[in-house]
Amino acid sequence: MVTVEEALAVILGEVSRLPDEEVALEKALGRVLAVDVLSDTDLPPFDRAAMDGYALRAADAAGAPLALEVIGEVRAGQWPDLSVGPGQAARIMTGAPVPPGADAVQQVEKTQPLDEFRVAILSPVGAGANVAPRASEVRKGDVVLARGRAIDSAAIAVLASAGRSRVPVARRPALALLVTGDEIVDASASPAPGQVRNSNGPSVAAQARLAGADVRLLGVAPDREEAIAAALRAGLPTDVLVVCGGVSAGDYDLVEPALLALGARFLFTKVAIKPGAPLVFGRLGETLVFGLPGNPVSAQVTFELFVRPALLSMQGRRVLERPRAWVELGDGVGNRSGRKLHLPARVRFEGARLVARPVRSMGSGDLAAHARANALVILEPDRREAAAGETAEAVLLGNFLEDDGAPL
Amino acid sequence: MVTVEEALAVILGEVSRLPDEEVALEKALGRVLAVDVLSDTDLPPFDRAAMDGYALRAADAAGAPLALEVIGEVRAGQWPDLSVGPGQAARIMTGAPVPPGADAVQQVEKTQPLDEFRVAILSPVGAGANVAPRASEVRKGDVVLARGRAIDSAAIAVLASAGRSRVPVARRPALALLVTGDEIVDASASPAPGQVRNSNGPSVAAQARLAGADVRLLGVAPDREEAIAAALRAGLPTDVLVVCGGVSAGDYDLVEPALLALGARFLFTKVAIKPGAPLVFGRLGETLVFGLPGNPVSAQVTFELFVRPALLSMQGRRVLERPRAWVELGDGVGNRSGRKLHLPARVRFEGARLVARPVRSMGSGDLAAHARANALVILEPDRREAAAGETAEAVLLGNFLEDDGAPL
Repeated sequence: MVTVEEALAVILGEVSRLPDEEVALEKALGRVLAVDVLSDTDLPPFDRAAMDGYALRAADAAGAPLALEVIGEVRAGQWPDLSVGPGQAARIMTGAPVPPGADAVQQVEKTQPLDEFRVAILSPVGAGANVAPRASEVRKGDVVLARGRAIDSAAIAVLASAGRSRVPVARRPALALLVTGDEIVDASASPAPGQVRNSNGPSVAAQARLAGADVRLLGVAPDREEAIAAALRAGLPTDVLVVCGGVSAGDYDLVEPALLALGARFLFTKVAIKPGAPLVFGRLGETLVFGLPGNPVSAQVTFELFVRPALLSMQGRRVLERPRAWVELGDGVGNRSGRKLHLPARVRFEGARLVARPVRSMGSGDLAAHARANALVILEPDRREAAAGETAEAVLLGNFLEDDGAPL
Repeated sequence: MVTVEEALAVILGEVSRLPDEEVALEKALGRVLAVDVLSDTDLPPFDRAAMDGYALRAADAAGAPLALEVIGEVRAGQWPDLSVGPGQAARIMTGAPVPPGADAVQQVEKTQPLDEFRVAILSPVGAGANVAPRASEVRKGDVVLARGRAIDSAAIAVLASAGRSRVPVARRPALALLVTGDEIVDASASPAPGQVRNSNGPSVAAQARLAGADVRLLGVAPDREEAIAAALRAGLPTDVLVVCGGVSAGDYDLVEPALLALGARFLFTKVAIKPGAPLVFGRLGETLVFGLPGNPVSAQVTFELFVRPALLSMQGRRVLERPRAWVELGDGVGNRSGRKLHLPARVRFEGARLVARPVRSMGSGDLAAHARANALVILEPDRREAAAGETAEAVLLGNFLEDDGAPL
């Protein structure tokens, strides 16, 4: 049995970076940037007016209030065909290039037109005021976005301003997903006595898609080794093969034999984690193989902690894990498992404190309880008890930003 | 000029909840659940074995080690056709129904088969041990997911287990987006002197999609009132109309006149916020109209704070805003604007502290700096200065969970 940390290190050691591809900017959201992006221009590309007003020489306005000659107007999108001399000013709009000769912009609210050719400057203005100098934000050739970043809306803006209408990104990992178990029926079915609906297929597929994978569903295989092997074979070739169920120590846990029959090599078969100890990882040629527990909460937690980082690493992501926070426990929790506990909890900022309340759960099969969690509170294997008010580390889950952690 | 809080209250007061539609479970990820979901079964639907082992009467095992008669086997997916009497046990697999008569499962590791018909139970087991009783997680009719929730992978699991292969969700808001400005050229173009590339179109569209909207791009309109009005008219009817640019006090800010010409009614035209003071909100019939600043960072910040909550509210989301945290400032910051400041920052958990470092930025046009932020530090209008080590409130941004806040 390996520790959680050892297991993750083994997994990441087996990951190969996928090749890149190019996508249109409007398809790049959520993908992983494959290159450092350099700016192809200075930004701003010219000394840019930051306010509507009058471009002038600051020295001329030192004795304000005073009048200046208005020699013309510069609008955004125009290149100025005028030059501001001593005693002169040019009407200017936000975003427009500051014309030669001028070194400041006095905002329009501090001016007063006198007639068609003269404006009163009502107060002085310092050199450089209301001007964003050329290259003050970015120099041509500067790295404006680093490779390995998930492309979000702010990155889209930078890519657009850098002229990247096509974006090099990592190819999506192909992930094939099999669920096993004689008792499993489709979500649309009415389970007969003894049967349960397939929740792992849809939910693990959703987790995989959120981690950037292209998911292929291999359906549900019954508890027969040859049926499992046939279903797995149908999923190959693929970058990642995930099987839910059939990996604990029971007589009918047939996933390992089926994988062995296909030629898989196992790197570990058990991790000191709760929920989820029976967790199989190995290789089948170039394919990474994960055998997750069939228990739905265990499947979701182990996917989050082990499969997601592998998928992100294949895409070259810089950050592979969710943020971890130290939280104050709102209720006491225990851990007699001897394994590293990851306890579903609701975490909420309460003033300056971050408070975690474990969700009331009847155990690792309790999907509805798990769905109320926005974090996993961690108790190390040797921490058998933690009282209310003590602190513990917690992994923030993917729904944390959509959930205020308030009581439901 | 209204405050940030007043502006948001006005906006949310104008929002109407959109009608519902039904989508397939595999298309429900990211949508907003429109109904409370009740479980159509008890969960577990039967007393369920939580371990592989032997189902038995706990009273029989009190004197263990001892031998019991093995009367058969129950596998997951089967309904037991046997009943466990005194002195008897049945082999049972994880997930299988506990047969009548038995009240506990002794795990296989604490047993030893003696021959085909007898097993040694090596240690006693309490009544109820390793059995998840029927309905212990969820009772038929219990609410397992509350309406207004964003459907994430954990919710997908609950929906599947509740038999919801089709899911009632709010219809996506239709959002039409126009960018204005003579200086704006497409991201694929090489800007002539005085021109800049259109970053607001792609990035605000991405923000809108992440908030659930169906986005229609109306392109870029030049700074002429009739051209703007024509472009806006082409975007109607729509649920939300967003215009970027042309809303400050300049002579060429023509968005308000164009909207007025179309019959819009304004509810406010300026908000005491930095970045982003010129911010227009109104109605055009049933359409909500937002005029955002053309400055790209201002556009992104005001979208996050005002348009996103409106889009979520139209979809019936329970939580409309991102979590806010009290952070320790890693650097001092100032706010001489007299407006509520939202300063792009990198926030990172450092042990038990949450530390924010404002990103080095040359101002509200600095897209590359903004893209390094994972939060917005808030300084109230009357807080002109905050030193390093002081605390402030911060809004966590959408990339917070993908970004460890470490120095780049």
